[in-house]
Amino acid sequence: MNPQVLVNGKPDARIDPRDRGLHYGDGLFETLAVVRGEARLWDLHLDRLLTGCQALRLPEPDGRLLAREAKTLCTGSDRGVLKIVLTRGPANRGYRIARTDGPQPEATRILILSPAEPYSPIHYRTGVAVRVCATRLGLNPALAGLKHLNRLEQVLARDEWSDPAIAEGLMLDANGHVIEGTMSNVFAVADGRLCTPRLDNAGVAGVMRQWILNRARELGIETAELTMTIETLEQSDEVFLCNSLIGIWPVARIADAAVEVGPVTRRLMVEVAPHCLMP
Amino acid sequence: MNPQVLVNGKPDARIDPRDRGLHYGDGLFETLAVVRGEARLWDLHLDRLLTGCQALRLPEPDGRLLAREAKTLCTGSDRGVLKIVLTRGPANRGYRIARTDGPQPEATRILILSPAEPYSPIHYRTGVAVRVCATRLGLNPALAGLKHLNRLEQVLARDEWSDPAIAEGLMLDANGHVIEGTMSNVFAVADGRLCTPRLDNAGVAGVMRQWILNRARELGIETAELTMTIETLEQSDEVFLCNSLIGIWPVARIADAAVEVGPVTRRLMVEVAPHCLMP
Repeated sequence: MNPQVLVNGKPDARIDPRDRGLHYGDGLFETLAVVRGEARLWDLHLDRLLTGCQALRLPEPDGRLLAREAKTLCTGSDRGVLKIVLTRGPANRGYRIARTDGPQPEATRILILSPAEPYSPIHYRTGVAVRVCATRLGLNPALAGLKHLNRLEQVLARDEWSDPAIAEGLMLDANGHVIEGTMSNVFAVADGRLCTPRLDNAGVAGVMRQWILNRARELGIETAELTMTIETLEQSDEVFLCNSLIGIWPVARIADAAVEVGPVTRRLMVEVAPHCLMP
Repeated sequence: MNPQVLVNGKPDARIDPRDRGLHYGDGLFETLAVVRGEARLWDLHLDRLLTGCQALRLPEPDGRLLAREAKTLCTGSDRGVLKIVLTRGPANRGYRIARTDGPQPEATRILILSPAEPYSPIHYRTGVAVRVCATRLGLNPALAGLKHLNRLEQVLARDEWSDPAIAEGLMLDANGHVIEGTMSNVFAVADGRLCTPRLDNAGVAGVMRQWILNRARELGIETAELTMTIETLEQSDEVFLCNSLIGIWPVARIADAAVEVGPVTRRLMVEVAPHCLMP
């Protein structure tokens, strides 16, 4: 049986208690769908990881090494979830990053393969109900877009509800603009145009979000990144959520407002299906 | 020789790669001055840790157990730094916190004893120069005040300068209000009144900040928690920084503006000296 965890290439190893990932959330992560032994949308995930490394001044991992380690874990897994975590590694006390003239902390590279959750086919057929979270996203242009390890806002937001009939919570930023779901990005279709919130000040620039924007343009669908509110979503023709695992969930209800599940969403669901864990 | 790290009571143990502290920064920490074998301001640190546990719905640690473990590490250390990290422990995928009807993740308790940094006596004698960081603190009332593990804003802010003549950087929130230093709280004295920024929307409610507010009131010094700007600080009679390790650093310069080191600061420095690592 394959290992399920690799830490710097070592099977089932553990983490130094001085790791800056643990102390400060000083690192990045990626979550990939594994289908028939293969981590999907690999190039987009690797691109985002490297972009994040540049933004946080983290040493860039060797992409070929990462791909080999991913293969070691994923081979033989028919459906699974691969998480890659990259931290600035163990270090002595203090927020300061070691400078080039001193000893550099060695990055920590963690790969974890988990079983795929069974997503309900009904979510895809009739659409999901979402709520609006009270927990807001702080504004920080330097961190916006990055899939970094500071995720307490998402933890608190996801802790706001336990009703299994609510599939996801939408999060607003401090200005009241819709940014994303707790674990997904959000799209709206209005007059045939595909819109998604701008992520200049908050939010995670999801790989599936990017894939959908790219594919929609190839299909001749007009796209836009906008400042959006809950009212924008409620007044749209269609709304959907996406991430690398679920693919696309049509939205049928936002709090008390019903939303139609429409043809652009259905068309894009067909496109994303091979690249995610859609049932 | 005593161990320097305890993980859930085990000497020099390591961390599960599935720990939520690592994946989400889902936890809290305390940093204590160790003087002659004893972690100082213990009760205030424990109080803040328990307050943070309630805010994040983390299981509260046993205070007597923590005290015993701290003693195991600190006995024999003349001057040191004790860091306590408490996380929600290892868990399966997803932001959601396990509910009471399911399996609870077991909290992870990490204690690390580090050598005390040698603080320059000149910082205390003539005051320090501080800069104003470009990295802003996001606004989040649910997280404000907590010493949680989401610290990328501090990491980025501390990475803005390397000039050793600059001792600390002041951080503003998204509204441009002064909140704190990257690793300290800030106070100003104006017309005999001791003022420090309100921490309703951002910032860490430092234990030394609280100790100083308490002690100042006992000494008959009027105190206030206010909305403050860089101009407020520059126009004050005295400005100082504090934390549990450094005690108090008088501020002699904020960017290009000179500040006087004054009698209220000097008086409070005498008070805090026994409780921190002041030379």
